[in-house]
Amino acid sequence: MATLPKREAFPVERARRYLEPGPIVLVSSRWSGHDNIMTLGWHTVMEFSPSLIGCMIAGGNHSFEMIRRSGECVLNVPTTRLTDAVVKIGNTSGADLDKFAECGLTRGTMHGVSAPSIEECHASFACRLHDDGWVDKYNFFVFEIVDARVAPSPDLPETLHYTGDGVFTLSGKAISRKRWFRPEML
Amino acid sequence: MATLPKREAFPVERARRYLEPGPIVLVSSRWSGHDNIMTLGWHTVMEFSPSLIGCMIAGGNHSFEMIRRSGECVLNVPTTRLTDAVVKIGNTSGADLDKFAECGLTRGTMHGVSAPSIEECHASFACRLHDDGWVDKYNFFVFEIVDARVAPSPDLPETLHYTGDGVFTLSGKAISRKRWFRPEML
Repeated sequence: MATLPKREAFPVERARRYLEPGPIVLVSSRWSGHDNIMTLGWHTVMEFSPSLIGCMIAGGNHSFEMIRRSGECVLNVPTTRLTDAVVKIGNTSGADLDKFAECGLTRGTMHGVSAPSIEECHASFACRLHDDGWVDKYNFFVFEIVDARVAPSPDLPETLHYTGDGVFTLSGKAISRKRWFRPEML
Repeated sequence: MATLPKREAFPVERARRYLEPGPIVLVSSRWSGHDNIMTLGWHTVMEFSPSLIGCMIAGGNHSFEMIRRSGECVLNVPTTRLTDAVVKIGNTSGADLDKFAECGLTRGTMHGVSAPSIEECHASFACRLHDDGWVDKYNFFVFEIVDARVAPSPDLPETLHYTGDGVFTLSGKAISRKRWFRPEML
């Protein structure tokens, strides 16, 4: 991997800036001395403060029990530099290989969780399990984001958005319509 | 508004193609002879079949009680042609004005719901309330998509993705990595 992005502390209540646009995220977890990573496109912001995010984590994933048992994970937002890693992570199982080593990814530490962040990503959000009431029913986890680290540059990263069938759309240009927003809507 | 897109029936279990990338959607609803529209960026795919989608609909929205009481809505995916309408819809209340008339939008009909679709949008997904167990707790609605209509062209539309602060990122080019996917992952 090339140079790591320089990342800084970021307010957890502003996580929507990077998660609401709907990018593929890399979910890193740690349990019983073992680290793993999975890809995830089925997530939604649920609240600003506490900073809540809902994630569908299918039971067939090796990460499922690791996250349920540890009660934590890190949501990392990759850019298109990491496309190859995203595809490899999404098409292999942590039961068979060490995805950090296989993809040449760098572990980092976050406040509030033991799970490692992925330092090559534009942003990382440390999550603690907030509500497991729908894990059995839907595989739906509600996490609270307790720490965030984000690269301040570029302002908005080029992210991957999954459409199924092996096809991603990339985030393109940004447009502001702030002048047309009511102040209380911003 | 310009010419309406020609839309066709689409398999509901493939809704992820348009919703998983995380676009802003326009949620149209009907209750007690009144129609309304709201913007929504906090949603996630939850299952292929039945085709489930989870949506956070804040209680302050005029649409909240309309959707809860009617038990249905339509999720419409606008393209950048509709940017002005998206901003207006997100910054006004259906308690004060008729958003269809105000934005010059065209009502359509969908199977399985009374709520109107928005014919100017690239895709529309008719939703029936599947699980209201977390409406009181989180304002989280689980809908089943029971009908879908999508414009076959363009293949992937230019959608709006909200980052907060009045700024949207637009979906850009598409890339396929299908050849690197395990068949069972497609």
